[in-house]
Amino acid sequence: MDLEFLQSLAVPAHTKMAMIIMDGLGGLPLEPGGKTELETAHTPNLDALAARSALGLTVPAGPGITLGSGPGHLAIFGYDPIRYEIGRGALEALGVDFDLRLEDVAARGNFCTVDATGVVTDRRAGRLPTEVSRELADLLLGIQIDGVEFFVETVKEHRFAFVMRGAGLDEALTDTDPHQAGVPPQPVRALDRGSERAARLANRFIDRAHELLAAHTPRPAANMILLRGFARLPKVPTYQELFGLRAAAIAVNGMYRGVGRLVGMTVLDLDGVTPADEFAALEQSWSDFDFFYLHVKKTDTAGENGDFSGKVRAIEEVDALLPRLTALDPDVIMVSGDHSSPAVLKSHSWHPVPTLLYGKYVRADGIAEFGERVCARGSLGVLPAKDVMPIALANAQRLAKFGA
Amino acid sequence: MDLEFLQSLAVPAHTKMAMIIMDGLGGLPLEPGGKTELETAHTPNLDALAARSALGLTVPAGPGITLGSGPGHLAIFGYDPIRYEIGRGALEALGVDFDLRLEDVAARGNFCTVDATGVVTDRRAGRLPTEVSRELADLLLGIQIDGVEFFVETVKEHRFAFVMRGAGLDEALTDTDPHQAGVPPQPVRALDRGSERAARLANRFIDRAHELLAAHTPRPAANMILLRGFARLPKVPTYQELFGLRAAAIAVNGMYRGVGRLVGMTVLDLDGVTPADEFAALEQSWSDFDFFYLHVKKTDTAGENGDFSGKVRAIEEVDALLPRLTALDPDVIMVSGDHSSPAVLKSHSWHPVPTLLYGKYVRADGIAEFGERVCARGSLGVLPAKDVMPIALANAQRLAKFGA
Repeated sequence: MDLEFLQSLAVPAHTKMAMIIMDGLGGLPLEPGGKTELETAHTPNLDALAARSALGLTVPAGPGITLGSGPGHLAIFGYDPIRYEIGRGALEALGVDFDLRLEDVAARGNFCTVDATGVVTDRRAGRLPTEVSRELADLLLGIQIDGVEFFVETVKEHRFAFVMRGAGLDEALTDTDPHQAGVPPQPVRALDRGSERAARLANRFIDRAHELLAAHTPRPAANMILLRGFARLPKVPTYQELFGLRAAAIAVNGMYRGVGRLVGMTVLDLDGVTPADEFAALEQSWSDFDFFYLHVKKTDTAGENGDFSGKVRAIEEVDALLPRLTALDPDVIMVSGDHSSPAVLKSHSWHPVPTLLYGKYVRADGIAEFGERVCARGSLGVLPAKDVMPIALANAQRLAKFGA
Repeated sequence: MDLEFLQSLAVPAHTKMAMIIMDGLGGLPLEPGGKTELETAHTPNLDALAARSALGLTVPAGPGITLGSGPGHLAIFGYDPIRYEIGRGALEALGVDFDLRLEDVAARGNFCTVDATGVVTDRRAGRLPTEVSRELADLLLGIQIDGVEFFVETVKEHRFAFVMRGAGLDEALTDTDPHQAGVPPQPVRALDRGSERAARLANRFIDRAHELLAAHTPRPAANMILLRGFARLPKVPTYQELFGLRAAAIAVNGMYRGVGRLVGMTVLDLDGVTPADEFAALEQSWSDFDFFYLHVKKTDTAGENGDFSGKVRAIEEVDALLPRLTALDPDVIMVSGDHSSPAVLKSHSWHPVPTLLYGKYVRADGIAEFGERVCARGSLGVLPAKDVMPIALANAQRLAKFGA
């Protein structure tokens, strides 16, 4: 179902929708035949909601495809994550939880070593330790040129995310990274007129960075930077444009605030960083929006750390908070994840994600449990993640009939 | 699976196929946790057939999409209802059960008011009452120009369906409706050569209608008509062309006779209007066709009226007639709906539709019940409605192997 078609059917309504995303929700048992993290968790509130819901397993991008959290969120938000690809630079910035804005131009960066003639002798500056990389990033902090702000956010070892923030910047820029030693870094070149200012400013920043790094004694080898994969966030039609939804994003980490903003959500301020603080923000703003996206990070963190019981506890923490949402009597509630992160894999995975869709007009499956194996039997079936949002909109009575 | 590909695999066979469509079959329980209309109905014959069938839930057009009956039928007939979109005028005519033919050009019409200079003063003629609208439509009855027949079929209030029937008419015609008051109606213009005759005739009809309406005393205000959305039925490849099927349509109401005709079915004459009369027509023509589509309207009517028990009774009526079909020993039987019409919603809805596929070579699920929740567990899964027909053709041994 393409978004333009959905847009043509969208109608206004006074219904309220909430989407709870437990990052990396899907899991695996520790032993064959055992229970997953979600199946292990004691979740009386989710189970009660499941009994009044349609269940299913969502496939984030396609069979066997493991997604990062950026595209994983685009999918559960209703967008084809392959069509609306988030460029490499923007992903790098989101990946370190940088609060990327729509106008920002981001790139992947390396600290590198050049010799006295300017030729690259080591593209990775000896894979310098992350803590040294942070020091160098601090050196470059607060540089502003011509009203444009620059950010250098350490990723790992020699790698960093680079962001330019200012008006009138575009992303059609060539890499400076020559991808081999023995040649000098290339200047940034603009591939279209709209990107010329960004090219000039990036080159000026690189020159300034070179001066500062070269003058820095502790690590003289890391005396230059290389940039590649310039990208802004992709242009996606917003929830407001598509569905007339006033949507709010409730998330602690920059990546999720960024993807929420990408689809036109208002990112809410939070008094704290816990799931309870997030539910409090939802309660406080309940009357101001039609749609709420609430993101919980701990499930994924535990999964990636291989911490099975930590992931179980994170799910139980959300379960305990769920009555604060249901007390608001939303018309539609979705509970899902952006991808799976089984503790046994210590990473994101391709496994379909347990998904619950509650609504006043949902045809409930009557399964009083929320877990991977019961979701496989649910009436949503095994479905693309991007198909959940249209079904949720229908349940919120926000889509008109086609071909009356 | 596109139709051209299926067509390339079609082979002749002597098998018989029957598709029973209970309009708006899918439902919802009256109370959370309760039974739907179909689950409530006492259906011993459908249950016995289900035990020997594969079950599933069909999604008419896409996740969350509510369809009208026209596109809903195209989908269960095996066509993509969005690709083969039925234009507005043709839908309007089908929607009032006008028995639209392939060569007919239809439009949406309004009675309106023009002043002495011909300027539109009220596009809706004061939203005249439906019964007055019927009187005015009668005034325009029987007009023929140059061998072409004209039909004006009341929809509601000022709205009517307009149909031109004759040889050599095409649909590339502009609206006469200026979509605002203060300007005169526009003449119909042809957008291609093939539509020029239709444009001339439509304009002559409009002039004649204006004379007759203006001379009519009871409602002088409704003295003109506006037309918009000219459309013929879409050109779709027929069952004969695609699959070599001699297909029959058994339906009382014009819309369903129209969509049957659209895909190349022979519309059978009926001795009466009840489901029993329809089953009798099927019995009488059993030797003459390979494929039978039998449409039952009452299920949808009850659903749209919010009449839960009426819908239950309509399903039970079909169940009681089913042995007349099974006695003929069809090779394949499909029982489904074109969309859902839950009584609690009093309207069409997006919910997937319970579907049963019986055949001598079906891998039966062994579920001796026909209802929404058991269909969610069936081996057809949750599938696009248009995918049922290819599976049915395979079961009728009418599709050859691909890649021998």
